[in-house]
Amino acid sequence: MKKIKVGFQGELGAFSQEAVRQLLGDAPTVVPFQRFEEVFKALDKGVTDASVLPIENTLAGSVHENYDHLLNFNVRIVAETNVRIVHNLMALPGVRFRDIRRVYSHPVALNQCLDFFTGNPAIERVPFYDTAGSVKMVMEKGLTDAGAIASAVASTIYGAKILRKSIEDDRQNFTRFFLLNAKQRVLPPERPVKVWKTSLVFTTRNTPGALFRGLSAFALRDLNLTKIESRPLRGKPWEYLFYVDFEGKEEDPVVQKALGHIAELADFIRVLGSYPRGH
Amino acid sequence: MKKIKVGFQGELGAFSQEAVRQLLGDAPTVVPFQRFEEVFKALDKGVTDASVLPIENTLAGSVHENYDHLLNFNVRIVAETNVRIVHNLMALPGVRFRDIRRVYSHPVALNQCLDFFTGNPAIERVPFYDTAGSVKMVMEKGLTDAGAIASAVASTIYGAKILRKSIEDDRQNFTRFFLLNAKQRVLPPERPVKVWKTSLVFTTRNTPGALFRGLSAFALRDLNLTKIESRPLRGKPWEYLFYVDFEGKEEDPVVQKALGHIAELADFIRVLGSYPRGH
Repeated sequence: MKKIKVGFQGELGAFSQEAVRQLLGDAPTVVPFQRFEEVFKALDKGVTDASVLPIENTLAGSVHENYDHLLNFNVRIVAETNVRIVHNLMALPGVRFRDIRRVYSHPVALNQCLDFFTGNPAIERVPFYDTAGSVKMVMEKGLTDAGAIASAVASTIYGAKILRKSIEDDRQNFTRFFLLNAKQRVLPPERPVKVWKTSLVFTTRNTPGALFRGLSAFALRDLNLTKIESRPLRGKPWEYLFYVDFEGKEEDPVVQKALGHIAELADFIRVLGSYPRGH
Repeated sequence: MKKIKVGFQGELGAFSQEAVRQLLGDAPTVVPFQRFEEVFKALDKGVTDASVLPIENTLAGSVHENYDHLLNFNVRIVAETNVRIVHNLMALPGVRFRDIRRVYSHPVALNQCLDFFTGNPAIERVPFYDTAGSVKMVMEKGLTDAGAIASAVASTIYGAKILRKSIEDDRQNFTRFFLLNAKQRVLPPERPVKVWKTSLVFTTRNTPGALFRGLSAFALRDLNLTKIESRPLRGKPWEYLFYVDFEGKEEDPVVQKALGHIAELADFIRVLGSYPRGH
């Protein structure tokens, strides 16, 4: 059987790769890309069979760029998963903690370890484009006075030694990832599904109460909204696109009625996918 | 009379400085800071009398970091203004357009001039931390093969020559700025106010229909919602803070009733300010 190819952003060992493993196990071939847009383009062109992309983090908030790409590319959300983000300080084997003068990582990761840096004021924070990429660089250059902050799996991949485990300020640090298919070819392993979720995007007419009436399509049918995100509507200053996630499956009769109700009110509506609620 | 000090992010000539001028005229002394957080801190400590900060752009969307700072610092929004963003290519006087090999600017500005770069594929885009800062750097280093993208006022301040005017892809490019006071000391010049706006932030209990019921406080009183933004609630994964702007003044009886209604439903509510609608 041909192995499926799954694209993600970052170097091997990025948290996105952990999301791939949670969603699809160890079977797929993972294909790293530098930028989110490249991950979407590769899926669109059939270079990959699926994509795994972060959509929000419980501390940093939404990944707005990916909300925009979801609209601009013809993809479907087929699954979601939540990855617990644990940051570890790692370095070349043999390097001791007291040798560390600089620590490289993605700015978001550095910002999530502020207590560590406050407690170790002699250590300089250096922003790098990727968490796992910072480990790769420290190892390849053989730096003996520098460390990197990344996932435990990155330490294994690049042969770095973990000097301090779980140095993130806040343990309530999770990132939610979507599994995307262009043609629904790749599905996650089947499990009994307790709760489905559906994601959609719509615009409202710029009239008083328009969003309230839009949300009534869900509230009046007891469909639980789990997320709402607004993005600017290009070409119409101060108007917005609304991205909504709610509990329910697209095929459910009540969801069909809610979607019909939104369509009555909205200039534009597109369902981005229905998928089992992630853990 | 002592000149008031107004903080903003970026170098002199940044679009934020144009916002200061639109809000307060040429009287204030402007104080540039490198980071948004520094602008808030300076106001909090009384180093400045007021701050001007971008909150959203019609193409790039909200400046989420500033939404977070609005909550974390004890400040009031006292005015808003919209600045039309016009990007100009500029260089050292004497440098001709055909000499330009590289163009420096803030990544958001570079991304808003994609048609220009597509039409001039030999010119490399180089990200820089600030639009006006990129002009300053090109001028200080005396680069003869490089240009910068920034506001017309930046060309005047640093003595650069504009080679191409208004190279932004989309003319519908506006940034909305807030004027913030810590103690309501600085007020914009009084004009007859047609429409007031009020900004607030609240949380909802994590129950089905909670946001819908929250928005009913405005919709059922015909208060026009102009913006809603969600940000993650620290320590409560997958729960959110909602930032809402609506038309009305905090002291209006109907607004008082709406705020009371929200307070019944919300665990937390804070009014960030009432201010005349900007132009």
